[in-house]
Amino acid sequence: MTEPNRPIIILVEPQLAENIGMTARAMGNFGLDALRLVNPKGGWPMKGVRETASNATHILDGARIFSTVAEALADLHYVLATTARERGQMKRVFGPDDGMAEAAGRLGAGERVGILFGRERVGLSNDEVSLADAIVTFPVDPDHASLNLAQSVLLVAYEWRRAAGQAVLPFTGGLRSGPAPREAVIALFESLEADLDAAGYYPPPKRDGMIRNMRDMFHRMAMTEQDVRSFRGALRALTRRPPEE
Amino acid sequence: MTEPNRPIIILVEPQLAENIGMTARAMGNFGLDALRLVNPKGGWPMKGVRETASNATHILDGARIFSTVAEALADLHYVLATTARERGQMKRVFGPDDGMAEAAGRLGAGERVGILFGRERVGLSNDEVSLADAIVTFPVDPDHASLNLAQSVLLVAYEWRRAAGQAVLPFTGGLRSGPAPREAVIALFESLEADLDAAGYYPPPKRDGMIRNMRDMFHRMAMTEQDVRSFRGALRALTRRPPEE
Repeated sequence: MTEPNRPIIILVEPQLAENIGMTARAMGNFGLDALRLVNPKGGWPMKGVRETASNATHILDGARIFSTVAEALADLHYVLATTARERGQMKRVFGPDDGMAEAAGRLGAGERVGILFGRERVGLSNDEVSLADAIVTFPVDPDHASLNLAQSVLLVAYEWRRAAGQAVLPFTGGLRSGPAPREAVIALFESLEADLDAAGYYPPPKRDGMIRNMRDMFHRMAMTEQDVRSFRGALRALTRRPPEE
Repeated sequence: MTEPNRPIIILVEPQLAENIGMTARAMGNFGLDALRLVNPKGGWPMKGVRETASNATHILDGARIFSTVAEALADLHYVLATTARERGQMKRVFGPDDGMAEAAGRLGAGERVGILFGRERVGLSNDEVSLADAIVTFPVDPDHASLNLAQSVLLVAYEWRRAAGQAVLPFTGGLRSGPAPREAVIALFESLEADLDAAGYYPPPKRDGMIRNMRDMFHRMAMTEQDVRSFRGALRALTRRPPEE
């Protein structure tokens, strides 16, 4: 099955092999796989293009080559053009988040959606932008507005994955043992405070306030049962009398 | 003023000059400027590092060099470690969006926040991750989980800019002239329909339905006043009788 319900990435006259490889890598990172190239400079396959693709070389192997933008778009239903510059064309302008939300909706309805990315130095021509339904631009610092080609593909792929509801983190920070029951935490406090009493740590008039402050500090640790056991073990080690000589 | 309320990007033993340059470029795209390098391979300044930095070379010029991670973190209040792998450490795990929301909150409260990025091939060591308060990981396709170093910096910078409320698109798709008053649209319809009547376009039993469908189609264009003028001009051109010979 080729080109399922994911947007198709279309690079127009890309020039640098490392950008095409990095584009494939970025697509793979976020689950895209359909790449089209319009008239890549120096022909295709391009020397060195696999070196920056990490394990996304299957995307390069499956890339389709076209000689005009119109041909590369011929079978698509909805086309977004990425650009950093206002074009004086009365199209909807999206950030990558809203653009990919629109794309995900259309992909879900069975439309084929493509996203055009222009040349490294000069981007897309006005005539090429004119072939698109809407524009995607990026919320960059205006003083540093030049996004690398593969970087702009990355942001679009990242936002597509989120808009498609597929952006799941590879792992979460779940507790390895359950949170300690309050009884265990209080037993730890009482044990610690008894040891500190025995060591003469508390100036008597300040004792109650110091205890409250230290209990607060420990509560902020949100200890697990294992944490409480480890801490009580450490406390026993610190208060153990050295063996008699 | 150095290192204002923006996160500090810390690369640990980066190896490739182009990745450091691309990191600076990505930082500049989204308004970051404080870069720290721990023990960059091959020393500093590094040959070729400026070539991929676009106009963000000021970030490279201002980079601070440290020989250990602990030194690079010494003056920070809150540290996030980026990693693709579960580390068996009981830390909070954020995606870049939630991680940067947390960072933006702390930066707003005057804390200094740093984000650790590991070596190109092996990332951060467990001991280095252990120096951080929490983890940032990315919602990648598990089969293509390897993000390029500068790409992961880009996603963090992009999400920081959003979390900080600074993600403004450089332009919007506002109409160049106001939307056409309904009167002008209806006048266009009537003119078009009169021309089509004169041309014998409508089969009489279908005329009313065809008119409704075509009016619907035009309504979807959401024409401006200028659009209506242009369309009426085009219609006049099409219906003009050729000059007599």
